[in-house]
Amino acid sequence: MKVHLTRRYMIAASHRLHNDKLSAADNREMYGKCNNPYGHGHNYAVEVTVGGELNQQTGMVCNLAELDECVRREVLERFDHQNLNTRPEFAEQVPTTENFAVVIYDILKREFRGTHLEKIRIEETANNSFEYCGPAKLP
Amino acid sequence: MKVHLTRRYMIAASHRLHNDKLSAADNREMYGKCNNPYGHGHNYAVEVTVGGELNQQTGMVCNLAELDECVRREVLERFDHQNLNTRPEFAEQVPTTENFAVVIYDILKREFRGTHLEKIRIEETANNSFEYCGPAKLP
Amino acid sequence: MKVHLTRRYMIAASHRLHNDKLSAADNREMYGKCNNPYGHGHNYAVEVTVGGELNQQTGMVCNLAELDECVRREVLERFDHQNLNTRPEFAEQVPTTENFAVVIYDILKREFRGTHLEKIRIEETANNSFEYCGPAKLP
Amino acid sequence: MKVHLTRRYMIAASHRLHNDKLSAADNREMYGKCNNPYGHGHNYAVEVTVGGELNQQTGMVCNLAELDECVRREVLERFDHQNLNTRPEFAEQVPTTENFAVVIYDILKREFRGTHLEKIRIEETANNSFEYCGPAKLP
Amino acid sequence: MKVHLTRRYMIAASHRLHNDKLSAADNREMYGKCNNPYGHGHNYAVEVTVGGELNQQTGMVCNLAELDECVRREVLERFDHQNLNTRPEFAEQVPTTENFAVVIYDILKREFRGTHLEKIRIEETANNSFEYCGPAKLP
Amino acid sequence: MKVHLTRRYMIAASHRLHNDKLSAADNREMYGKCNNPYGHGHNYAVEVTVGGELNQQTGMVCNLAELDECVRREVLERFDHQNLNTRPEFAEQVPTTENFAVVIYDILKREFRGTHLEKIRIEETANNSFEYCGPAKLP
Repeated sequence: MKVHLTRRYMIAASHRLHNDKLSAADNREMYGKCNNPYGHGHNYAVEVTVGGELNQQTGMVCNLAELDECVRREVLERFDHQNLNTRPEFAEQVPTTENFAVVIYDILKREFRGTHLEKIRIEETANNSFEYCGPAKLP
Repeated sequence: MKVHLTRRYMIAASHRLHNDKLSAADNREMYGKCNNPYGHGHNYAVEVTVGGELNQQTGMVCNLAELDECVRREVLERFDHQNLNTRPEFAEQVPTTENFAVVIYDILKREFRGTHLEKIRIEETANNSFEYCGPAKLP
Repeated sequence: MKVHLTRRYMIAASHRLHNDKLSAADNREMYGKCNNPYGHGHNYAVEVTVGGELNQQTGMVCNLAELDECVRREVLERFDHQNLNTRPEFAEQVPTTENFAVVIYDILKREFRGTHLEKIRIEETANNSFEYCGPAKLP
Repeated sequence: MKVHLTRRYMIAASHRLHNDKLSAADNREMYGKCNNPYGHGHNYAVEVTVGGELNQQTGMVCNLAELDECVRREVLERFDHQNLNTRPEFAEQVPTTENFAVVIYDILKREFRGTHLEKIRIEETANNSFEYCGPAKLP
Repeated sequence: MKVHLTRRYMIAASHRLHNDKLSAADNREMYGKCNNPYGHGHNYAVEVTVGGELNQQTGMVCNLAELDECVRREVLERFDHQNLNTRPEFAEQVPTTENFAVVIYDILKREFRGTHLEKIRIEETANNSFEYCGPAKLP
Repeated sequence: MKVHLTRRYMIAASHRLHNDKLSAADNREMYGKCNNPYGHGHNYAVEVTVGGELNQQTGMVCNLAELDECVRREVLERFDHQNLNTRPEFAEQVPTTENFAVVIYDILKREFRGTHLEKIRIEETANNSFEYCGPAKLP
């Protein structure tokens, strides 16, 4: 019996969408007001979904304390109350929420061994969300 | 790397569930209070999910301004603050939220070319929602 | 010790904002898209607040079953899944949410005797709400 | 055209996470504060997803009144305003929310014949949710 | 310039509404399914509102870290993941949410000196909330 | 008959809490992680409450289109997708959410003449909100 668990964490962070390799005009056209020079911010809701066989003895699919500790140490400490543009993870790529989802997925895929990581979903605002389930398998 | 983007739009509309081909008694039994003759209404939350390869240059999966403009022109202008029963899309079918989801899916599948349309989800009330992912592929 | 209790009820209804005493042009200017001829609808969240002394024996401020039964009989049965414009309460006044709040306040003030009615608050959409606390007392 | 319908129901219940076959120390380490001897509680939001072909005549995928009646009789009457640990369904297993999801899935799979049951999702808190889609098919 | 700050905390707890001084029949009539012998539970959302003059130097009305620490120590540690009926605060009174609001108000009034306590509001469920602002002043 | 209308607007902005007149150590102690040098951000939900006599002819308390246009021009254009620390309104004061509420109140008090401004409420996060009702009247 396979069960999925989704856990929600909040990250208050700022970012500016800007690609140094493009002209100012192209950046403005591409990113609109998200290209404002001093940045802006969001309360990102990050949902981590893990899945696996239900442990018959514990009745649980994942040790929640271990997941929380891993997310706190590897994700919240890096990004909460930070400016994403100043982080090394975004030195070579624009801190869009799409890229943010991939970055968090890759971190947790590497660091959290307890249960299979299924998906990262980020709500950027109440009307916008993004999901990443890892690299697609080859057919 | 495939990422999904979901964007949420609100539509305030009214409808009456009634099938002219059925008797009054059958309509009442089938649709209950949703068959009241003068109609009633909802704040429909329409969630549009698109998905595709992450563009390495922009860090985005979809041009949000293009999606918003398409949904505004093709969906919100047609249905927001309207009575669904008076719309040509529902001349031959009952404006259930199931059918509403299929109608919106078909419109956006035709009109929005920017990114692959994955799913339409409509919340009719806080306790009721419907999803349509397009016609199932043959095996 | 005075305590307030707020209870939330949902009403799915349709309405059209239109004043017969005004010209079509004035109606359109005043009410905008809410003046569309066939009406539109909302999921109204109606919050009823009552207040009074905490009963030391029961530890309650209001008999919730009595309040629910009164709201069901006097408010939900009249307005849920209805077109507000066809209701006698709106024969002489436009069914704005402001007027709807006053109508519900007056009904419950008359019909619910169990605990003092303090306020009616209606959420018309996630971004719009209206409150009415009864006629202001003279100074 | 296959459509999914999701319906949300609330269950206020209490539980204590404790496995009689383990030592007190192991229980405390495994379940943390959820192992407190007198139990605690939650407002569980149970989302039932069913899916099937859209009925062309009715425009519906499921008779909602039948689903509501089945869930009321088979799920809400058993678990709402109850202590899960005292229920026979949890005589042999710990009432984790994972197990609760499987229990509700199995009940509705057996009792609700109207439309294909796709998924049970339970929100235990605003930050925690669990999903179960039935036993995985063999490859 | 007086500003109010409201801070929201979650408490998962169980309770049973029962007054030992009343008969079993009276208890059942008064409290309905909330009188079930083994109790049930809720995710209580406790909102603490404090108010005062805006400090011109800090731009803040309250030291949030101090408030959080006080609520954690005095409220969450006592009630979170507990059965309210087993707590000494409810030895002589029924653990209704009305009484729970008064108990929390009295604790914080005594323990939190940083900023004036204005109100305790508890959401018992998504549809039920209770507010207490302290003993009314004599006229 | 006096009715209150509350309208909700979203502002995505970044800020850093830092007072130049204090030492680095004092700033860090006072503002904690909100003092991080590169700032962070929020989705601020700004609720504007106005109140007045219900207009008998229109059934409305406020021209919503006028309010929306005023808030868009005077508030959203200044602050949405901006870094609050770079705005002239915060040249002499720390951009706490308390001060942000006062700033918005003062702008709308001056610019919106249609209906009496009653209150500004800002949700900084799902767990934090601030209210300002204008300068207290002298007794």
